[in-house]
Amino acid sequence: MPISETWLLPDGVADVLPEQAGVIESLRRVALDYLASRGYQLVYTPFIEYIESLSSLSESNQDLDLVTFKVIDQLSGRLLGVRADMTPQVARIDAHVRSVEGVARYCYAGTVLHTKPQGFSASRTPLQLGAELFGHDSIDADVEMVDVMLGLIDKAGFLDGVHLDLGHVGLFRSLIKFAGLSKADERQLSDLYQRKALPELKDFTENLKSGSDFYALGRYSTDLEALQENLSLEILANAEFKAALDELISTRSQIQLRWPALHIGIDVVELRSYHYHTGLLYAVYSPNRAAPLAKGGRYDGIGEHFGRARPATGFSCDLFALTAGQFKKIELVVAPKGHDSDLVQAIADARQNGLSVTQLLGNDDLSSVPYATHKLSNVAGKWIIEQI
Amino acid sequence: MPISETWLLPDGVADVLPEQAGVIESLRRVALDYLASRGYQLVYTPFIEYIESLSSLSESNQDLDLVTFKVIDQLSGRLLGVRADMTPQVARIDAHVRSVEGVARYCYAGTVLHTKPQGFSASRTPLQLGAELFGHDSIDADVEMVDVMLGLIDKAGFLDGVHLDLGHVGLFRSLIKFAGLSKADERQLSDLYQRKALPELKDFTENLKSGSDFYALGRYSTDLEALQENLSLEILANAEFKAALDELISTRSQIQLRWPALHIGIDVVELRSYHYHTGLLYAVYSPNRAAPLAKGGRYDGIGEHFGRARPATGFSCDLFALTAGQFKKIELVVAPKGHDSDLVQAIADARQNGLSVTQLLGNDDLSSVPYATHKLSNVAGKWIIEQI
Repeated sequence: MPISETWLLPDGVADVLPEQAGVIESLRRVALDYLASRGYQLVYTPFIEYIESLSSLSESNQDLDLVTFKVIDQLSGRLLGVRADMTPQVARIDAHVRSVEGVARYCYAGTVLHTKPQGFSASRTPLQLGAELFGHDSIDADVEMVDVMLGLIDKAGFLDGVHLDLGHVGLFRSLIKFAGLSKADERQLSDLYQRKALPELKDFTENLKSGSDFYALGRYSTDLEALQENLSLEILANAEFKAALDELISTRSQIQLRWPALHIGIDVVELRSYHYHTGLLYAVYSPNRAAPLAKGGRYDGIGEHFGRARPATGFSCDLFALTAGQFKKIELVVAPKGHDSDLVQAIADARQNGLSVTQLLGNDDLSSVPYATHKLSNVAGKWIIEQI
Repeated sequence: MPISETWLLPDGVADVLPEQAGVIESLRRVALDYLASRGYQLVYTPFIEYIESLSSLSESNQDLDLVTFKVIDQLSGRLLGVRADMTPQVARIDAHVRSVEGVARYCYAGTVLHTKPQGFSASRTPLQLGAELFGHDSIDADVEMVDVMLGLIDKAGFLDGVHLDLGHVGLFRSLIKFAGLSKADERQLSDLYQRKALPELKDFTENLKSGSDFYALGRYSTDLEALQENLSLEILANAEFKAALDELISTRSQIQLRWPALHIGIDVVELRSYHYHTGLLYAVYSPNRAAPLAKGGRYDGIGEHFGRARPATGFSCDLFALTAGQFKKIELVVAPKGHDSDLVQAIADARQNGLSVTQLLGNDDLSSVPYATHKLSNVAGKWIIEQI
């Protein structure tokens, strides 16, 4: 590599310069303070772990394994993974490190690394921020989590025009179980739902056991009232299916009560991370953006890998995505050289008031300080701050 | 690995639980706000880069290369390094990404990864925080940087009892040049100085060109006055040697002026990172700790690797080390269930006042919330916060 190209960065990797770093840093603080106010306690998880520890989710989620960078531990000779998702790490802490009975709430913020970008023009080094609630399997916990997620998006200044999408893997999963379908059929259906391929779905379900119910699930996926009218009485009476449907309906109405102006959409065949999640799914979208601002769901049983299965629900977001295109104007005050006590005091006062102040070095003049926006000048014996 | 051991972490890697994370998060904010007040602008550097980009310092600093984890970029097939030090990255930004004439000041905070712990019982995932000043080669810049470093240590609550150590690689380097010694002799001397092996140094320097000056450097390494009395007139008249000595003396007196109560020590044969640094060296030590709280120095010429050589001086510290053993008491208020507007308002008010408040879920009682320290109770129609 010629020296002149040593400054090139890999794809999906970027520097964050002060104008953008200021915005991210502010949101990071606002978000963590907000989560703390809601009772979520901050943890820092390690950057590297034995690969077996990181794979609690990847057993059922090959994607996570594929995006995890692996390195050899020079101390133990064993394989380490660089964290690609902090959720399994927080689950490990809940299951083992700080294991308590009852409900535990944690939040976290940190860079994760991905071997390949997840989605179009995505970063390989997202700044993941999230919250997890362990130890409660009622829908109340999911409602709290959706409420916390919406509160966070509100704090980030995004709430106008966003919409919430709710789903529940329990509908599809209990219908599969009820119909007794094979894994191959399950995969085929899942694929058809993802592709929203209704004509193909019609063909495929025509001779399938409970076919009309599988078709109705796809055809009326976004309209719970029409869906219920078109499902068979048998499946509507199925305990597991009914529980999932009730949870979805109850969450929608409870969230609408708390956020009356919010547009809430339903998608019962939203099956992203189907193998990973076990119940309600939630995601917040803003207009003009394909990727959700934040997303999450229930993933009961996490922690079993560490010896203690726990109900769990949580969400995460990428702080880079939440602050994309926002820049902070950086103000910088330049002060002249000198140890005069009036000057020293004026500089200390300005810094105390939250301003950035640098003093000229050596024989420098004002032109030596790039980005300077203001100067400290002595006008009639008083130090004042003037725009440059 | 049996499931029961999946929670084990590699050596030198640790979870940070809420009590400690709270302390680190606070110091991180205080430190970055302080650096901003001094005119240092925040940048976030990438977690991974092409290995050639990270090696600007490692050409002269094999240690850095050895502690850098390497992975293959699945997008380009090229070798990536996980950052083990953020200084070369900030230098790259100064040299190329945000290249300006004049003085540029940057600060940063983030996790770096080390293949092996650097020092006894050190972490392999330190949380590096630092500041760099580019574009000024006068001692004024070093004095500012030492002053900023001391201010930061003060903010961290550490200033009582700490001492500042000053060194300057220019003394040894110019004496080597003056005497025209071989690389082998240079290495041998460097080793003897590091080991403080005075009798061996006496033997070795007896027949060496300028031997008495090399011996004096080691013998009076911490006493500039005695050192000057014992050096030859020839070396004291040498321009490069004199400049280095003057810089050291001037820095000491300027810093003592600003921090009158501070104990300042000198060590002219402190040659850590000798190949990397080019001038003044500075480190802050606290009693009872072998490793410095913060350290830095001048490293002119950085940026040449990226096409633009720049004078540079800077320091860094590990936030984990600065907060070791400190724990924050976490307070958590538990509120009963309910949507009563008085209760909702009481919860909102408490959160607004900076308290962490969770509401009970489902049919839970107080015992379901571990770590709860307070509860919101209705006493005679008013919601008040009581200790549990």
